[in-house]
Amino acid sequence: MAGDKVKVFGMWASPFALRVEWALKLKGVDYEYINEDLPHNKSRELLQYNPVTQKIPVLVHRGKAVAESSVIVEYIDEAWGDGYSIMPRDPFERAQARFWAKFVEDKCLQGCFEVFSKTGEEQLKAVKELQERLKTLEEYLEGKKFFGGETIGLVDIVAGWIPSWIPIIEEIVGIKIVDEEELPLIYAWMHDILELDLVKKTMPPLDEVKTHMRNIREDVLRKTN
Amino acid sequence: MAGDKVKVFGMWASPFALRVEWALKLKGVDYEYINEDLPHNKSRELLQYNPVTQKIPVLVHRGKAVAESSVIVEYIDEAWGDGYSIMPRDPFERAQARFWAKFVEDKCLQGCFEVFSKTGEEQLKAVKELQERLKTLEEYLEGKKFFGGETIGLVDIVAGWIPSWIPIIEEIVGIKIVDEEELPLIYAWMHDILELDLVKKTMPPLDEVKTHMRNIREDVLRKTN
Repeated sequence: MAGDKVKVFGMWASPFALRVEWALKLKGVDYEYINEDLPHNKSRELLQYNPVTQKIPVLVHRGKAVAESSVIVEYIDEAWGDGYSIMPRDPFERAQARFWAKFVEDKCLQGCFEVFSKTGEEQLKAVKELQERLKTLEEYLEGKKFFGGETIGLVDIVAGWIPSWIPIIEEIVGIKIVDEEELPLIYAWMHDILELDLVKKTMPPLDEVKTHMRNIREDVLRKTN
Repeated sequence: MAGDKVKVFGMWASPFALRVEWALKLKGVDYEYINEDLPHNKSRELLQYNPVTQKIPVLVHRGKAVAESSVIVEYIDEAWGDGYSIMPRDPFERAQARFWAKFVEDKCLQGCFEVFSKTGEEQLKAVKELQERLKTLEEYLEGKKFFGGETIGLVDIVAGWIPSWIPIIEEIVGIKIVDEEELPLIYAWMHDILELDLVKKTMPPLDEVKTHMRNIREDVLRKTN
């Protein structure tokens, strides 16, 4: 049915929209991708489907819209309950996954933004803090290939920006963040994520992402200095 | 079994620890409450159970610890799957509940902290912004007694600080935030929450909370001015 078509409102360079695409692909769900022209030319549909935050990504399924990428990923796991499991089945393991997904979002992503938007001594301090947070995150990888175990799960999807975006940020700011010696498990995980067909097939051209990120950094620095 | 005893590590004036108590009481689960002496005398048990964020609340069940209040509430709903449902059953409604719980946490709670920690023009701006966010939240109450419908659910629990803490903040800063005319549904909801036995039985003495909040405000203002 045409009205049943799953839609994803995203933006080509957004790692948050990628989370939604990965979850849908893991479930084998076909979808139409609507690339939004952000931040100034949001489509009427986006504003209608997500009036509250007006942000991408938004998933539309059976005419109903779900917003916030981590909420969407759990929705996809529940709405297409058969097949691939993004969330573990055990309540304690589910809670662990949600706790670490939140840690990635609140601590690692935020920490990365600090590195990206600061300079000088403040930036070096932010790098050290981010590295400590990644070291903490590493504990949850102990004895596993992925955060989800043998296959990727919620935390891998939510942290999925790390393997592509951190190297871009390292290059832009000229500081190494993830060192193989210091963060061996995170380093190996980043490699394993980039080897996934799913990731290769959906990743935007990284050179263009890099240019996009350089522009964002210049904007941020202009505003804060 | 003694080892099976459910424990909650909280702090008497914490609205976040109350979320955990409410969820347990809705499920009819007995628990031992350990009041932590924050922020400087955290118990060894708390640090052992939640080494990552070292924050309360922490739930210990079958010897395993779960941290982050909203993660704990969902855990309780899943681990004690029978009886009272904190989360709706339908995947779309579950996603809605998670979206609005996140909105309360990221926008309303944060907005309240802005009001609480600022002064003068900046404070008035923060009040207006918080009121707009509460107006947005009100949409999700449309046609319902509680956010969860006829009974309280995830969003009521996560937003459960609003009915007691906003009036305290209003009194401390001397500005009305929730006006019955402007936010009629939120106003009625606040009243209905305070009428619940569950809430009455667990609420700490509000006079003492007020003194505690006044001390926090003085600390914050000292640090920022």
